[in-house]
This record gives sequence, C-alpha cells and structure tokens, in this order.
Amino acid sequence: MTAPLTIALDGMGGDQAPRMVVAGANLARKRFPNANFLLFGDEPTLTPMVKRFSGLAERVTIEHADEVVLDEDKPSVAMRQRRRSSMRLAIDAVGEGRAAAMVSAGDTGALMATSKLVLKTLPGIGRPAIVGVFPTQRGESVVLDLGAKVDCSARNLCEFAVMGAVFARAALGVTNPTVGLLNVGAEALKGNDTVRSAAAILAESDLPFTFHGYVEGNDIAAGTVDVFVTDGFTGNIVLKTAEGTARLFVDFLRRALKRSMSSRIGALLARSAYRALREQLDPRRHNGAMFLGLNGIAIKSHGGTDAIGFANAIGVAVDTAVQGCNTRIVEELQRIALVDSASIATRTDTNGVTS
Amino acid sequence: MTAPLTIALDGMGGDQAPRMVVAGANLARKRFPNANFLLFGDEPTLTPMVKRFSGLAERVTIEHADEVVLDEDKPSVAMRQRRRSSMRLAIDAVGEGRAAAMVSAGDTGALMATSKLVLKTLPGIGRPAIVGVFPTQRGESVVLDLGAKVDCSARNLCEFAVMGAVFARAALGVTNPTVGLLNVGAEALKGNDTVRSAAAILAESDLPFTFHGYVEGNDIAAGTVDVFVTDGFTGNIVLKTAEGTARLFVDFLRRALKRSMSSRIGALLARSAYRALREQLDPRRHNGAMFLGLNGIAIKSHGGTDAIGFANAIGVAVDTAVQGCNTRIVEELQRIALVDSASIATRTDTNGVTS
Repeated sequence: MTAPLTIALDGMGGDQAPRMVVAGANLARKRFPNANFLLFGDEPTLTPMVKRFSGLAERVTIEHADEVVLDEDKPSVAMRQRRRSSMRLAIDAVGEGRAAAMVSAGDTGALMATSKLVLKTLPGIGRPAIVGVFPTQRGESVVLDLGAKVDCSARNLCEFAVMGAVFARAALGVTNPTVGLLNVGAEALKGNDTVRSAAAILAESDLPFTFHGYVEGNDIAAGTVDVFVTDGFTGNIVLKTAEGTARLFVDFLRRALKRSMSSRIGALLARSAYRALREQLDPRRHNGAMFLGLNGIAIKSHGGTDAIGFANAIGVAVDTAVQGCNTRIVEELQRIALVDSASIATRTDTNGVTS
Repeated sequence: MTAPLTIALDGMGGDQAPRMVVAGANLARKRFPNANFLLFGDEPTLTPMVKRFSGLAERVTIEHADEVVLDEDKPSVAMRQRRRSSMRLAIDAVGEGRAAAMVSAGDTGALMATSKLVLKTLPGIGRPAIVGVFPTQRGESVVLDLGAKVDCSARNLCEFAVMGAVFARAALGVTNPTVGLLNVGAEALKGNDTVRSAAAILAESDLPFTFHGYVEGNDIAAGTVDVFVTDGFTGNIVLKTAEGTARLFVDFLRRALKRSMSSRIGALLARSAYRALREQLDPRRHNGAMFLGLNGIAIKSHGGTDAIGFANAIGVAVDTAVQGCNTRIVEELQRIALVDSASIATRTDTNGVTS
C-alpha cells in the first residue's frame, strides 16, 4: 500500500463505542501508515478521546454527527430518518468519494439498508450479501450470506456464488476458488427447492470458478471448499453457532486444565501453545464482514467487539479497497453471463459442454 | 429399569455396519442388563459376528433381512420398495409391539419416511422432528428439528416447541423447560415470516413451558434455553457446523501442543485433562437422535459412528422407552390446546392472561 487512503468510521456504533472505535483506529493507524480516518460522531465526546492517544489526532478528522442509530430502530427508520447519524454520514463519505471504505459496529440491518440506499448495488446484482472469513482445517474459507437477506431465491444464491468467488480470490489469494452450496446432505435429491434450483443453474453455467456441488455444515470447519454459499438466515445462525462452539471449547479446556495439580503445571508449560491456539481461534482476528455487491465498500464489525477486533475490521476495509474487490466483481459479472434455468436448454458453452 | 425391554436394531445401516452394530449391542448389553435385542440383517453374516462376543448370543435374536436400504435410495423408494430391508423390519417390530424401540444408523430420510409410514404420527402432530442433545456451558440442551423437514410452517415450529419441551423434561430432567426459537437476532422485528408467526402463536398460548422468545446461534453453546427450535434445514446445518467446529478445535489444539518441547511435556502432564475434555466433547457421547412425534420410538444414530457411539444410541432408545416419552407427548398435547393466530383474539386463558 503506497497511495494514501481515507477510511470513514462510524464512531458511535457498537456496544463499547465510541471508546473502542477510537482505540481501534489508533491500532490501525500503526498497522496502515498510509491510512487516514474520517471519524463521525459526537464531536465533544470524540475530540478528547482522540487526543488521549498521542499521534492519533494528525491522522483523524472528526466530523460531528447529531444522531446515533439505535438498536431498536427498524432498518427502514435508520435508513430514512437518521440522516444525521454517525453511521449514515460515514456511508455518505464513501458515496461522495471522500472515503475509500467505511467501517461500522452498529446494527447490521440498519447498516445494510442505509448502505444500499446510499451506495446502490453493483450492476447485475439483485441482493447484496455479507461475507466473512472462517478459520478451517485447510486455512481459511469465506462464507456468505451471513445475514443480509433472510429469504433468498435461487438467483440470489447464484449471485452470492459469483461474488464469493471474487472475494475469495482477493481476500484469500486463491486462483481458482471452489464454491459449494450449503445443504442438508451431499446427494442431489436433498434440500429445499431453492437450493436445488441454484445447484442446477450453477452446474449448467460457464463459471469462472469450480462449482463443487452441495456441502454440509461440517464441511465449513473442514475447509472442503473456498466459498460456502447459503441464505442469510442459515448463514447468520451458522456463524454464531461456530463462534459459540469455539467459546464452549475454550471454556471446557480451561476448566479441564484446572482439575488437577499436574494439569495445572502442564498448562503452564504449554502456555505458548495455548496462546497460539487462542490467537488462531480469536473471533476478533476474523472480525470485519464485507457487504458484497454494493457500489462502495462498507465493512460491518461485530457489535460487541473491542479495539483489537475493530482494528481488524479496519484492516478488511483497507485490504478490500486496495485490492479493488468491487471492480473485480463488476468485471466478473460482465465476463460471465449467468444463465437461468429457462435458457439452459438452448445454450452451448464455449468450452464444449452442451448444457 | 427392572422390566425386560426389547430393542430392535437395524444391523445393516451405517458406514461401519454390521460390525459396529454388533459390537455396539455388546457394549449396550453390559450397560442395560434387562435389555434384549432383535437384530435384523443378513443372517449368515451376523451369526458368526454375534458369536465372537461371549455372552452376546443369549441376548440377541437374529432375524434375517434380504434387503438393505442403500444411501442412493430416495426415501420414497426405501419406504415403498425395501419392505424386506433390515431397517424396515426393525421398524415393523416396533409397530407390531415386539420391540419397545428401534435404532438405525442408516439413511436419515429413508428412516424418517419408513418410520412415518409404519408407526404413523402421534395424534395432534403434523410433522415429526429429529431431536438431539447438545453439550452447553450450562450442561445440556436439546435442539430440534435436526433435519426431518426442510420446509417448516409456523404451526410445525410450535409443535416442535411442545415436543421439545416434553423431551427435555424426560431426557434432561428439567421441570419447567425454557424454549427458544432460533433466529438471526433477538429483536422482535428480526427473521422471516415463519419464525415471526411461530413466535406470535407461542407468545399468546397457554403453554406448559416457558417461551423465552428468539435465540441466536451462539445461544446454543451458551445453553441460554433448554430447548432450541428451528426448521430441519437450519437445524441440520447447525448440528454439523457445531460438530465440525469442535473437531477443528481439537485439531488446532493437537497441532499447537506439538510446536515446542515444553508444550509436549506440558501436554503429557495434563493428559488427564485432555481425556476429560475429549470425553465431554465426544460426538459419540451425544449420539442417538430421536424422531419425535411418531407413535413408536425410532432412534437415528450417526451414519459414521462406531460401536461406542452406537451403544449410546441404544442408550437413548432404552431411556426414552423406559421414561414413556411418547405417552407424555400425547398427554401434553391433550392438556394444551395450541391456539393458532386466528383464534387468539377471542380466547382468554385460564391463568387470567387475556390473549
């Protein structure tokens, strides 16, 4: 990264905001020396907070926001009525080209609705999706949709597959990503109509990635494919189930190691191993989910994250902006003509596969 | 348990069948001295296998089955055409009253379709569900549906709530179970129409359990409620995601502990702690999911399980048979009149809550 980059921050979103936003910006400032921040929120609160970190004030421009999006706000209310909110103004900054990306730990629904209104979807995309990175046995995989759209059509799932593959190329560096559709079994006859239709469309399309077919819940941690595609209802529950299970394991391990003196000594000797494990599974490490399919970069941080997690979300904003993820999506979508089931019968692929 | 109990076993279902079925029966025989087994499958194969375990032959009656349900069989094919299969004959034994329960590690769809055909659903139940026990921070919770029905109506979800509460009372021993509906957020406006309608019905009903409202994926491992209700698509993926994440954690831990000499020594000293942890998270420990809502007990074991896991599935069969879970469900369903949204306006509950 050499060119200077401006990242807009929603200073008021998140359980521990604004403190963790400012502290997170301070961590990110050191990691990304060319990044500057436009920080939106209550100016009288933010100014002394920023000053507390020496060296931060030069990199941060505070812009006052009268309003805050409340957790109880319906997304439609947040979108239409909170025009002076810290979240809205940060998104506006991206829409106006004043910032290359924005980050918010505020309500997901409000952030999605407002981002869509301001930034609009990319050409060819019906529904944006939230994509996140999961640790796996084989490294990392991306999963989408993590909750942008609870009811999805087959066409939506196909678009998610295309966007997820582009994101995997950019974020994970895989040349030919494999893409799987999350289902209740690997056999062709399993699942609901939507998933089966999406599989039929993808199997018949001339896609710039490898469609692996159906995958199951356990395939995520196994890393069976690079991109896991599902609807926002299932994806959101999957994300939180995986996080909860990881926390449960850590807790069980901690309790087990306290049971005897020799375990305690053993735990002490192996503490570097536990540290490595904790880091590998730290949800903050994978914080920062991207809204894929919007004409501008909006990154959603966990609402409950701390400064370390928020700094990682800023990292995702910097990476996707630098790597031009959205430009690539538009290119991919132009290159591939996603067929739908009606046109399959009459189409012959250029690679010789009669579909 | 004092009265003798006969459990029917599908000898041919599962990746490691018939060997693990026979070895599992041998383990279960020691744990449940009053249980006898009706073992269905290829008689020439099974007889020498049973004889290999001294003391097992007296407790097992082998009944020959010509056919096996194949993984590639559609549930409808398994149900209609495999009438001489080991799975079908084991279910028939329950239907005829020759066995108190049956256990199979065969295909879930085939087992569900055939069980429904033979045993029929309990009065008042539209759709059976698969229920399983998950380890949590607070002990254990039950989750349903784990994959019986991929598309669920609000009414289906309400029935799952009632059945899950009965099962939690019997299996977990909780007097007043709390029940939550799995959703993408705890707020009332979140989720899809089905989940919102189900929540409205449950909130207005005079239920013999506490309806907690919405819960999220991370609440499962936290054990926020005793009973987690969701559709079979989401539930199946949640189950497998949790299993996959637990395996990932074990793998990461193992690798981390091998990184240095002091970690290796530490791991050796703490090996009793790791053993305890492994046991706590062992998927075999929680093997054996019940088909709730059928007029007879059919237990689904993991297809890939071994003898230890299969013995635990037999344990679930014994427990639910002894505790009369199905009788309780019928009683509960008769006691409570699950209102539907249409009748809410005109109904006043006996406990004084105008609904």
